[in-house]
Amino acid sequence: MLTLPVIPEPDAISAAAAAARQARLTKPTGSLGVLESLSVRLAAASARSSPDISRKAVIVMAGDHGVALEGVSAYPSEVTPQMVLNFLHGGAAINVLARQAGARVVIVDVGVMAPLDNVPGLVHRKVAPGTANLAKGPAMTRAQAEQAVQAGLDVVRDEISKGLDLVATGDMGIGNTTPSSAITAVLCGLPVLQVTGRGTGLDDAALAHKVQIIEQAIALNHPNPLDAMDVLCKLGGFEIAGLAGVIIGAAAVRVPVVIDGFISGAAALIAAGLAPRVKPYLFASHQSVELGHRAILEKLGLRPLFDLEMRLGEGSGAALAFHILEAAVRTLNEMATFSEAGVSDKE
Amino acid sequence: MLTLPVIPEPDAISAAAAAARQARLTKPTGSLGVLESLSVRLAAASARSSPDISRKAVIVMAGDHGVALEGVSAYPSEVTPQMVLNFLHGGAAINVLARQAGARVVIVDVGVMAPLDNVPGLVHRKVAPGTANLAKGPAMTRAQAEQAVQAGLDVVRDEISKGLDLVATGDMGIGNTTPSSAITAVLCGLPVLQVTGRGTGLDDAALAHKVQIIEQAIALNHPNPLDAMDVLCKLGGFEIAGLAGVIIGAAAVRVPVVIDGFISGAAALIAAGLAPRVKPYLFASHQSVELGHRAILEKLGLRPLFDLEMRLGEGSGAALAFHILEAAVRTLNEMATFSEAGVSDKE
Repeated sequence: MLTLPVIPEPDAISAAAAAARQARLTKPTGSLGVLESLSVRLAAASARSSPDISRKAVIVMAGDHGVALEGVSAYPSEVTPQMVLNFLHGGAAINVLARQAGARVVIVDVGVMAPLDNVPGLVHRKVAPGTANLAKGPAMTRAQAEQAVQAGLDVVRDEISKGLDLVATGDMGIGNTTPSSAITAVLCGLPVLQVTGRGTGLDDAALAHKVQIIEQAIALNHPNPLDAMDVLCKLGGFEIAGLAGVIIGAAAVRVPVVIDGFISGAAALIAAGLAPRVKPYLFASHQSVELGHRAILEKLGLRPLFDLEMRLGEGSGAALAFHILEAAVRTLNEMATFSEAGVSDKE
Repeated sequence: MLTLPVIPEPDAISAAAAAARQARLTKPTGSLGVLESLSVRLAAASARSSPDISRKAVIVMAGDHGVALEGVSAYPSEVTPQMVLNFLHGGAAINVLARQAGARVVIVDVGVMAPLDNVPGLVHRKVAPGTANLAKGPAMTRAQAEQAVQAGLDVVRDEISKGLDLVATGDMGIGNTTPSSAITAVLCGLPVLQVTGRGTGLDDAALAHKVQIIEQAIALNHPNPLDAMDVLCKLGGFEIAGLAGVIIGAAAVRVPVVIDGFISGAAALIAAGLAPRVKPYLFASHQSVELGHRAILEKLGLRPLFDLEMRLGEGSGAALAFHILEAAVRTLNEMATFSEAGVSDKE
């Protein structure tokens, strides 16, 4: 039986101290725009008036999807373990972007179809070799979904014990835009067509087929939109469940979470359904190309920091956002005040 | 007499090589979005199929404006030299953001009203102690404008001799959104009202006054929109002229230029008017809050990388954009290809 940790309120005193300092820094008030509000939100989340986000990690959860058999992806499932090995060898986009941001990368097998038990460097938390096909029945049992969420809680707890100030979510799983669109449609109360995109590159016919598969899955499984665990079991993926656990586990100890794109967004929807108090700990990174992502961000009340037309996953957008959050914190902490610098304030 | 350097064509062969490599990297084609197109543009500009942008500088040009006497800014002109000293002591936003990006900061007095001759660490290229009031006549003589452009050419040449792969433009000058709006109105052919914003924080009445001052300046000076040097003399600022020189000087030796916000954008308009071949070397950073900035980016055919509601100047948005350009270059150069990583390409 899964027990979720208690998530504290964000700290209003630290937030107020950060906001007061922003007003004294040598710049017109508000001229650093979103950097200023980010710094205040990070202060609130971390309960530190001068937040420190130097120790960063991207946690990439990998899993396969029974629904991939329905031809919903441009790539075969064999790519999931191949990319896991690429991550471990440092050759993928997330490795490059995390290195640039000074973040470590943690790769977790939470449900890859291929056997990866003997692969070194990988965190082994496989729940099952891929989910069941959600077009034919529930993707997971409730016990499996809980086990995958627990894996996320455990992985982030281990990372926190090593020292962690900021965490990003990343995903790998061929076919995983399909469960993400299904989750988004149900939890945002939107038609499947409005939240289903081309994933890694479907043509019009394949996209229409994907929409039909998702509609079939929802009609067949009857997920209860008021019960995020029910939605997760019936439509989710192991990596989505694991990332929901990462989000909840980080928020519980005041570690802010940078949400990558569409799959991470679906995980954040699930996390917010399971534990609504995670919301102040969530920081959106980018606006993904994937069609349903906008609905997720609106539902969570998050504003993306940039739109660079990315649609890769892996945590790539979140790793890029690290630089902006770092800029928010550094300007707050390191800039001189008007009185320190002897600069005249507004007339 | 000013002689502008010749600007080479961007290199199509390096661009094609970078684009071909992007297609072989372990990701769905196009999934890194704008990062991919940026990497190809940087390859074309630098004539290197694997661009290197490790040596970076922000060149901040500082100058004062006779028009500040008309009450067009929320801050007094004395803030310009105060902020110059703040830059030199490392306490301003641009210092913090440049440190984060691993870039050096070069501060140039190209026309500050206060005497700064004995200030160490400053590049001394003062043309005059502030421009004349453009609401009463031309802001500069042609000789002064040429001298300021030459200062920019010289400063960037000196920086290139120290080693420079990427340069950003920054500005400091109380009142400088006024000449920037005037330049934008004339060179984009738009009504002053459509390109004039609140600068560091004007209220409605002060904004209306600012618009009226700019309209008066344009009516009085009759700048010729087909002659960028005429527009620069009559409406410009020394820092705007200096930055136009930086842009042209960098492009001439294939150093890509990251354009900050509104004032830097006005300088880019002038640079593109003086030397249209600079355009492929220009990289927009952010979308500024300042009203006329959108028109500038459209006129130059540039797409901003992010909109964080910033309106500070100093090169702050450009320094933040360095991380995104670095990500573009690093993913191009460091990611594994499908064959290197043994990953199956699209079916």
